Amino acid sequence: MSQRLKIKALLQSQQTEIDVTVKGWVRAFRSNRFIALNDGSTNNNIQIVVDFENTDATLLKRITTGAAISVTGKLIASQGKGQTVEVIAADIEILGDSDPEKYPIQPKKHSLEFLRENAHLRFRTNTFGAIFRVRNTLAFAVHQFFQERGFVYLHTPVITQSDAEGAGEAFHVTNFDLNNVPKTDTGEVDFKQDFFGTATNLTVSGQLEGELGAMALSDVYTFGPTFRAENSNTTRHLAEFWMIEPEVAFNNLTDNMDLAEDMLKYVIKYALDKNADDIEFLTQRLTEEEKQKPQNERSDMSLLEKLQFCLTHDFERLTYTEAIEILKESTPNKKKKFVYPIEGWGTDLQSEHERYLVEKHFKKPVILTDYPKEIKAFYMRQNDDGKTVGAMDILFPGIGEIIGGSQREERLDKLEQRMDEMGIPKDELWWYLDTRRFGTCPHAGFGLGFERLVLFVTGMGNIRDVIPFPRFPKNAEF
Amino acid sequence: MSQRLKIKALLQSQQTEIDVTVKGWVRAFRSNRFIALNDGSTNNNIQIVVDFENTDATLLKRITTGAAISVTGKLIASQGKGQTVEVIAADIEILGDSDPEKYPIQPKKHSLEFLRENAHLRFRTNTFGAIFRVRNTLAFAVHQFFQERGFVYLHTPVITQSDAEGAGEAFHVTNFDLNNVPKTDTGEVDFKQDFFGTATNLTVSGQLEGELGAMALSDVYTFGPTFRAENSNTTRHLAEFWMIEPEVAFNNLTDNMDLAEDMLKYVIKYALDKNADDIEFLTQRLTEEEKQKPQNERSDMSLLEKLQFCLTHDFERLTYTEAIEILKESTPNKKKKFVYPIEGWGTDLQSEHERYLVEKHFKKPVILTDYPKEIKAFYMRQNDDGKTVGAMDILFPGIGEIIGGSQREERLDKLEQRMDEMGIPKDELWWYLDTRRFGTCPHAGFGLGFERLVLFVTGMGNIRDVIPFPRFPKNAEF
Repeated sequence: MSQRLKIKALLQSQQTEIDVTVKGWVRAFRSNRFIALNDGSTNNNIQIVVDFENTDATLLKRITTGAAISVTGKLIASQGKGQTVEVIAADIEILGDSDPEKYPIQPKKHSLEFLRENAHLRFRTNTFGAIFRVRNTLAFAVHQFFQERGFVYLHTPVITQSDAEGAGEAFHVTNFDLNNVPKTDTGEVDFKQDFFGTATNLTVSGQLEGELGAMALSDVYTFGPTFRAENSNTTRHLAEFWMIEPEVAFNNLTDNMDLAEDMLKYVIKYALDKNADDIEFLTQRLTEEEKQKPQNERSDMSLLEKLQFCLTHDFERLTYTEAIEILKESTPNKKKKFVYPIEGWGTDLQSEHERYLVEKHFKKPVILTDYPKEIKAFYMRQNDDGKTVGAMDILFPGIGEIIGGSQREERLDKLEQRMDEMGIPKDELWWYLDTRRFGTCPHAGFGLGFERLVLFVTGMGNIRDVIPFPRFPKNAEF
Repeated sequence: MSQRLKIKALLQSQQTEIDVTVKGWVRAFRSNRFIALNDGSTNNNIQIVVDFENTDATLLKRITTGAAISVTGKLIASQGKGQTVEVIAADIEILGDSDPEKYPIQPKKHSLEFLRENAHLRFRTNTFGAIFRVRNTLAFAVHQFFQERGFVYLHTPVITQSDAEGAGEAFHVTNFDLNNVPKTDTGEVDFKQDFFGTATNLTVSGQLEGELGAMALSDVYTFGPTFRAENSNTTRHLAEFWMIEPEVAFNNLTDNMDLAEDMLKYVIKYALDKNADDIEFLTQRLTEEEKQKPQNERSDMSLLEKLQFCLTHDFERLTYTEAIEILKESTPNKKKKFVYPIEGWGTDLQSEHERYLVEKHFKKPVILTDYPKEIKAFYMRQNDDGKTVGAMDILFPGIGEIIGGSQREERLDKLEQRMDEMGIPKDELWWYLDTRRFGTCPHAGFGLGFERLVLFVTGMGNIRDVIPFPRFPKNAEF
């Protein structure tokens, strides 16, 4: 028997009239004659032509949606519309049946909510096949981008002692029997008896450890899972998500912006090149979906146009202070169309403001810099004005903030002072401060929430649909 | 000022007599004249020549081990030994001082134990620079290998409900205040009130979720952190480690062995090509280290030879049953040299047996297959003999098992029967069983503990030295 060929390769085959073996799952079987077969290597099915008059009726009955089959036959140029090649089946073997009465994924449109509840099977739909192939490509593109530039991929720890960014949004990790947590004489939890001998959490960011690497290897990046125990049931938040956090010694804020802009353009272009079929499918999907919405809620751009929009424009760079001026004077602000009116300097921007700047005012991706220090983290480099820090946020159409970063405060005295002001425990972060004690240097980095990127490139509306098995309040199924 | 160039690029420069800027950390400064500067891009330092007679004495004093400096000057062909180019400094700027009285990393040999306690600074040593560059290369090589073959990289969840492989070695994840865990009326922990509404753990393997992906996308792999709350203080175990788990629809055990052997050879060759300098350094390091040991404890092969050994041999494939026969008849068994004597069929092999097979008997890497079902996991495919399962372990010199895998049990009835026998809760794994209900097919996969691979390729002896910030009993520092 000939070696199994993947459907993607078959569909691109320059040769026909050859014997092939193909295996996959039946997407549809019509007229007892045409099987649409998919193996996940591409969104496109290969058509298998069955000689039903000479095929056992019992076998024909078992060719149902979802069944796994193996087909041997001849690859020929197709007579029909919609495909260039097809396989004339000589032999069909049922590898695994799929009872059409019970199989949850029927050959019809299912709601995304239903598919979320059947996340173990949603990979078998066109939409989720496309999403997870695009996600794969984006993940590899991220690695390739950094590897081409000599960065070292660093696996920063998932279990940490510190809840460095504070806010108490970290999950606890413990080996205790929760029914019987050991206590000290004074009635406190006796963490000395826990596995790590101390209270531990799931990391909220690998940045601080990333900086340790950068202070020796110069250019590093992390790409790993991070966690927030934030009780928000939104389409934009996950309790478990993947983050990419580069950190570069000797970079200033401008270098940091250049790196982030280059990276975003690189990975989007990479996906457009490698997953053209999937992105075309997802573009059509989104256009169809938006037809259900009232005109004023539809996007101005199709998915493909939105991706091109980010590739073809230099990102507009301006300070937070300049952005506030623009927003204050903007028509929606004056006409009180913003849910959160812009009244003055100092408050954080909401998604509606970010999108106004990108989609209406500049009509290009935007990088805002130099935010008020009060709304940013302790480690961001303090500007000479005493009011702002060297932060940067990159804003994208439809999605708002996609990247947040900064130049880091490399001066020990300034850093310690800010930690004191913000109540960050310095003794817990002795190792972080050591890098400022010994051979400190200017450096900068940023964080990209990977699911935000996948959301943007796939045009999906709910972040739970771009990670295989989403974790959110009251859900850790699968 | 010219753009900063990385030291790796400078050392390979074909051009000399050009103005350059280079930044990094001082490794040594001798005779007030020669700075050895490193920026982590390579294990090799660039020599900076200082015109000390025309340099401010205060500045000279600040050029200490660990200080971060920026140097502008002329790149010239070197007069001295040990380097082909060097930089004649025109301007030196101290970016960050390093007080030689306080800096923990002195220009001398530190114990690995000491460096583990200073893991935030150990990146700045030759040994750890090399280790983490090799680790980076291996991680990327893994991705590249699977991407070239059309696999989809799947991020399986870290937080899970199931403790699928049992053994109770999973860490608990909770949002409860451990001082005040909510209880139900009957005195049980009230997990309904916890973040996920159920008891949750850190994953011990992404395999089961990986299989869900493979049953639609055909060829998938995971590469993510996994966790074991195993209280073992050894040089081979970590509480947090990274695993690579490919899973392939339509593959049988032979396909699985081919894939694993190809992968190991690919990534080792990739590291040898890309990190020749680092591996040469690590080979010398190991040779030096082994000189401290008595003759009979030294390896027969150098690190480089061990890596070549795995590339140049076809891996020997035999069954567990055949291996037991060989071991039973072996000289060390007969002379009672094994700590665990081989008495008969059915027990698991120890590292000493695995190493005997690889290093003494076959003198090549070995793949053992078809283990007794009693010592393997519930999901492995049952062989017709009723006694063994389609498992495979790959054994390497020095290290023993580096990969474990199997063909999976795709037959629902056989799988359920084995789960019942082993007390695996079927209701918790309804989604896993669904893939056997709907379009099941033969498939196979394996798991590679990434740190085991890095340990092997770097020749280090303790797994805590090949992950940036190791987690083990009583330690979650940094």
